[in-house]
Amino acid sequence: MTGESEQALVLLSGGQDSSTCLYWAIEHFGRDAVSAIGFDYGQKHSIELTCARTIAARAGVAYTCLPINTFAALGGDALTEEGVAVEQEPDAETGLPNTFVPGRNLIFLTYAAAFAYQRDIAHLVTGVSQTDYSGYPDCRQATIDSLQQTIQLGMESDIEIHTPLMRLSKKETVELARDLGALEVMADTHTCYNGSRPPCGACSACQLRAQGFAEAGIEDPLIAHA
Amino acid sequence: MTGESEQALVLLSGGQDSSTCLYWAIEHFGRDAVSAIGFDYGQKHSIELTCARTIAARAGVAYTCLPINTFAALGGDALTEEGVAVEQEPDAETGLPNTFVPGRNLIFLTYAAAFAYQRDIAHLVTGVSQTDYSGYPDCRQATIDSLQQTIQLGMESDIEIHTPLMRLSKKETVELARDLGALEVMADTHTCYNGSRPPCGACSACQLRAQGFAEAGIEDPLIAHA
Repeated sequence: MTGESEQALVLLSGGQDSSTCLYWAIEHFGRDAVSAIGFDYGQKHSIELTCARTIAARAGVAYTCLPINTFAALGGDALTEEGVAVEQEPDAETGLPNTFVPGRNLIFLTYAAAFAYQRDIAHLVTGVSQTDYSGYPDCRQATIDSLQQTIQLGMESDIEIHTPLMRLSKKETVELARDLGALEVMADTHTCYNGSRPPCGACSACQLRAQGFAEAGIEDPLIAHA
Repeated sequence: MTGESEQALVLLSGGQDSSTCLYWAIEHFGRDAVSAIGFDYGQKHSIELTCARTIAARAGVAYTCLPINTFAALGGDALTEEGVAVEQEPDAETGLPNTFVPGRNLIFLTYAAAFAYQRDIAHLVTGVSQTDYSGYPDCRQATIDSLQQTIQLGMESDIEIHTPLMRLSKKETVELARDLGALEVMADTHTCYNGSRPPCGACSACQLRAQGFAEAGIEDPLIAHA
């Protein structure tokens, strides 16, 4: 438990991992010290934003959604560009999945830091993980460490970036969600790359999620309530 | 002179410094290897964007303007928020001028890096300077170095950020512009914080510019053509 003046801002996408992080932040900083931020960046499945809003409301924290129209202008990725199908196999040349927006997490975290800076919030919390990571170099601890330094230098601030899931497997993340009481909102989270509710079960995101719940021996509330 | 395959992307705001950098990049990488990028972020004086487009055209390089609607949503700074006057004195608490958008250059450079990544462009060029810098911590070399590392880690790329004006005084920047043949576009640049053409001459940006030309003993084409 940190001092009363320590506030935390959670990057809440509406997915399983960031929702778990929201409850982690509430546990560590206290509910009154926690708020959440999300980004409307032209993602194909805006249902994520509805999920994030619902989850924040159920958790009892304020939620702000910032618009980002720049990714769509940059173009070329499967999550924002209509007509680009999500491929299961990573790009042969880069080894990255074609859902990759170069620097997406760097942008999200830098905007979150600017928002936090203006409100004297000293802690950012993000659900990135390098254990089961999907090929995104901006999810690794080395990148986050470097970004934290960049933000501290560039904004003359002491903002810290917390990554409670960084070294957890999907199974361990599910167990953490259970221990934090976060399973109660898991039926409101969104994971499926194809935007289906109930989830398609076939895309890599659905499969990774199902595997985590199966290995933890816990029923996924999203499936149970479908 | 770098090899033919080395391309460079210049962050072109339409101001004196970035226009000088455009000519620096043309000198170092060759005109055909250089392109320019700018950002329509809701700045009060959209004349900057017109200037940037004109300057790129006169220099014979391609120019892309990316929209950023996020700063306006973040709010709270004098350059984007109507009704907030530009103050001459820095904020008493932070020591920063109230034209400061937290992390603005971090965002610009990260977007430029994403744009460059998608086009196999390995070099970014930005006109930031810590010599006469206006109190912006994201203009310092230590910040840029850290950001370059963050981008290299987060995008798995070798993108380099060049800062040819970092240690130059305004006088030296004017002399560099002369040596590079960049004075020819100086009448098309925009500097004035109050958005005036001809420039107001009173704001800190106008005064810094005038001092640089005066010390270099060169007539400012922007004033001469007014």
